[in-house]
Amino acid sequence: MDIKSYKQKSEYSYTLGAFPTYELIQNMPGIVKAVLVHSSFTDRKKLEKLCRTWNIEIRTDDKTIARLSDKENVYVIGVFDKYRSALNTDRKHLMLVNPSNMGNVGTIIRTAAAFDFTDLAIIKPGVDIFNPKVVRGSMGAMFRMNIDYFDSFEQYSEYYVKDSGRKCYSFMLSDKAEKLVPEAVPAGDNYSLIFGNEATGLPGEYATWAKPFMIPQSDMVDSLNLTIAAGIGMYLFSGKKL
Amino acid sequence: MDIKSYKQKSEYSYTLGAFPTYELIQNMPGIVKAVLVHSSFTDRKKLEKLCRTWNIEIRTDDKTIARLSDKENVYVIGVFDKYRSALNTDRKHLMLVNPSNMGNVGTIIRTAAAFDFTDLAIIKPGVDIFNPKVVRGSMGAMFRMNIDYFDSFEQYSEYYVKDSGRKCYSFMLSDKAEKLVPEAVPAGDNYSLIFGNEATGLPGEYATWAKPFMIPQSDMVDSLNLTIAAGIGMYLFSGKKL
Repeated sequence: MDIKSYKQKSEYSYTLGAFPTYELIQNMPGIVKAVLVHSSFTDRKKLEKLCRTWNIEIRTDDKTIARLSDKENVYVIGVFDKYRSALNTDRKHLMLVNPSNMGNVGTIIRTAAAFDFTDLAIIKPGVDIFNPKVVRGSMGAMFRMNIDYFDSFEQYSEYYVKDSGRKCYSFMLSDKAEKLVPEAVPAGDNYSLIFGNEATGLPGEYATWAKPFMIPQSDMVDSLNLTIAAGIGMYLFSGKKL
Repeated sequence: MDIKSYKQKSEYSYTLGAFPTYELIQNMPGIVKAVLVHSSFTDRKKLEKLCRTWNIEIRTDDKTIARLSDKENVYVIGVFDKYRSALNTDRKHLMLVNPSNMGNVGTIIRTAAAFDFTDLAIIKPGVDIFNPKVVRGSMGAMFRMNIDYFDSFEQYSEYYVKDSGRKCYSFMLSDKAEKLVPEAVPAGDNYSLIFGNEATGLPGEYATWAKPFMIPQSDMVDSLNLTIAAGIGMYLFSGKKL
């Protein structure tokens, strides 16, 4: 099989690097098509054993690795079929509305996993989670999660909010928003935390759909970076329990 | 003056973009050598007025902007003399030990400003804060802060910890570390928060020099991203008071 550079229309994507490739195989072995190894990779035996367990083709292919890895030092690539996953109805969710930066989304996925958020809803338009830059940014943590796209908050709400008792919280800089201090964090686990686009934040309607919180901050900057805001929000809602 | 591409040895550096250039002029007008504006910049009047106030040369220079801006959309560049600044002895400090990623340090500086940390100590080796990538990542927030380099923690300690009553807290994944939950945050403002390198974390000695904390996290990831950990730490120690 000749592996092509990733495009959003591609039916498959790939992990760049040994760590995310292990995450891929250990969490979703059924979708792995092949593992490519560079001839100078020094830890091949362990990887070969894992591939044998799951009956995954493993081969040396320096040329394809050089072509796909875009100047970075990559010794292992895992090729996998793209997939859809449904969110758990009974778990806490993270929601990103129109995220536009691939590195940010990768970092947020990794942070979500760190705070035991296994379910991510993305409101379109938003970055393609299967882009190798996102996969790499997540360090493969995305393979431990359920991630699904929605056309709108209303569509998400139909499936997960209505009649479910789920509480939604939006993060925005607004006079209407309550300051998010540890004491303000509500009890319970049946909730969704909602964060907006890196540059434009959340549309105002979200304040009516979801109780608005703002992370207290000085007036020295105009806003927090999205990844930081999401990290603090997820930590506060969930980190204490870990 | 012919502006050269930035090198660590350069005596001057530059802001890329209108927002960080405003931050530069408004906070440190005395170090600004010149402001370059692209001929298609639409908001020139406001900037001209500010430059007139501080007697700063402003000129159209599309060619230099194209050369320095490295493919990004940049319409304004502020050229400034590099400087040293001493930390405040009576304020909370952030310390980064051997930070290696310029984008991370820029984001951390911006986050520090958001949580009212105006003083940053960097233990060498560490990234050059005057690199335009750091300046840009900080969105110019660095011009509101005091940032200084130290050869070692001992050297920093001589100036700022010994006989001062300052408390130091290190962030590390260690069995010795106390879980950082909101209730564990000590009172007072005379402290330093210490974070290690992106890949290797903090050397073990820091657990003896500074009370170790760890941010609770699931076993789904090996660690939090440095910027996220620093954001959560600074938020918890200080965000409640904002």
